[in-house]
Amino acid sequence: WARAVRGLLLDVSGVLYDSGDGGGVPIAGSVEAVSRIKASGLKLRFCTNETQATREEFVKKLQGLGFDISVAEVTAPAPAACRILKERNLRPHLLVHDDLVPEFAGIDKTNPNCVVIGDAAENFTYANLNEAFRVLIGMEKPVLISLGRGRYYKETDGLKLDVGAYMKALEYACDIEAEVVGKPAKMFFESALAEMGVPPQQAIMIGDDIVNDVGGAQQCGMRALQVRTGKYRPCDESHPHVKPDAYVNNLAEAVDVILQQV
Amino acid sequence: WARAVRGLLLDVSGVLYDSGDGGGVPIAGSVEAVSRIKASGLKLRFCTNETQATREEFVKKLQGLGFDISVAEVTAPAPAACRILKERNLRPHLLVHDDLVPEFAGIDKTNPNCVVIGDAAENFTYANLNEAFRVLIGMEKPVLISLGRGRYYKETDGLKLDVGAYMKALEYACDIEAEVVGKPAKMFFESALAEMGVPPQQAIMIGDDIVNDVGGAQQCGMRALQVRTGKYRPCDESHPHVKPDAYVNNLAEAVDVILQQV
Repeated sequence: WARAVRGLLLDVSGVLYDSGDGGGVPIAGSVEAVSRIKASGLKLRFCTNETQATREEFVKKLQGLGFDISVAEVTAPAPAACRILKERNLRPHLLVHDDLVPEFAGIDKTNPNCVVIGDAAENFTYANLNEAFRVLIGMEKPVLISLGRGRYYKETDGLKLDVGAYMKALEYACDIEAEVVGKPAKMFFESALAEMGVPPQQAIMIGDDIVNDVGGAQQCGMRALQVRTGKYRPCDESHPHVKPDAYVNNLAEAVDVILQQV
Repeated sequence: WARAVRGLLLDVSGVLYDSGDGGGVPIAGSVEAVSRIKASGLKLRFCTNETQATREEFVKKLQGLGFDISVAEVTAPAPAACRILKERNLRPHLLVHDDLVPEFAGIDKTNPNCVVIGDAAENFTYANLNEAFRVLIGMEKPVLISLGRGRYYKETDGLKLDVGAYMKALEYACDIEAEVVGKPAKMFFESALAEMGVPPQQAIMIGDDIVNDVGGAQQCGMRALQVRTGKYRPCDESHPHVKPDAYVNNLAEAVDVILQQV
């Protein structure tokens, strides 16, 4: 599975680092693994569903943990959503994390004709959810754009419901289907590949999420590895629909094998 | 559709009264309609998905509006859920309205092995939803019991997301299906019929909700009318799956027609 590779797409949380209250800790070997990829001449793209911060803040945090990463190397849902909003003249009502709001600075938000939902965390209040619902149900044809469809994630103080759960609540209440930006949406992987200038057949996605990372990338014609770090659980290895091209214990091991072939 | 009737099941909110901040207002003619049903000798059962108060509080409110109603005449989800909890030795973690908690007074809630969700309103906080999720995901086989599957309802200060939306969020996050107690569950209508001692063929359900009242009752072999009050919307009359046995402008009109046949 490691032959003829020209580009790698890396999920971030659970692959590079484990998130937590204090900002998180790098996963052993991952800082060096990123440096080795860059030194090898392989194309590299960080492909994240993170929507609790702007890319600037996100990258700053990772640099603080020792990673060689820049904003220009990150594919994230909010900028992808902004492109869609502009293309379709959509004015969003935002239900997102306070720290993500600056990503939408250039977007007209008056008199909303769609709702954009991200991992709003503490902003997922009863009042805010009712407000987003009222905006949607008041439209002739409600448009809901969701920055990901994750079920839940782990922080140091426990598991948290992710944006996908709240997306489902609004979908059900309005009897609609959301448009998902971010993994596992095909368009999201395709834009990351385009930014790298690498065709899917020559790219490998490395992630900890069996559905959103592995399944999504494979749907685009890429190979995909699951790391046994982050949100990986042993039962993922008997997933009914998705089978990674390989399992690796962590990013460092994946890079070992790939670089032997280059 | 009004022939050979021995019993009536009435939805409450939107049929007897419109709810609101000050406790609500009776729908014109409904107070008298209930009295006329009782005077006629027809069996009568109030069949509600209300879970924001105990039956005692709920009945007290309706009596205050002038209705001839007692606790023993009300079929509601919480007592039905309590029967299930006892039968299956389930100890619930409750995500419900504060005012509903007394209905679960006799139930062991230590070391929970299921989650019961109702219309918790202001208790639908980010923290409470995460907590209910953690209880569920920590079980080998998560059991989620939902007191209804309503999408939303209207209060004087606007539309509110109902329990069904939050049920869907937890279902998705845990990849499970909730067990729904309350309308449109077949068991719920069947217990109301048993309490009346009337077979479904001789009973009529009268409600404002095309799916939960009309569709649910018809699934049980009852006839069902939709009133053009409460949450009724003109587009209900072209619903793709459910067709009431008749439309009536309000409860008073339904009772007029039914009593002519008795």
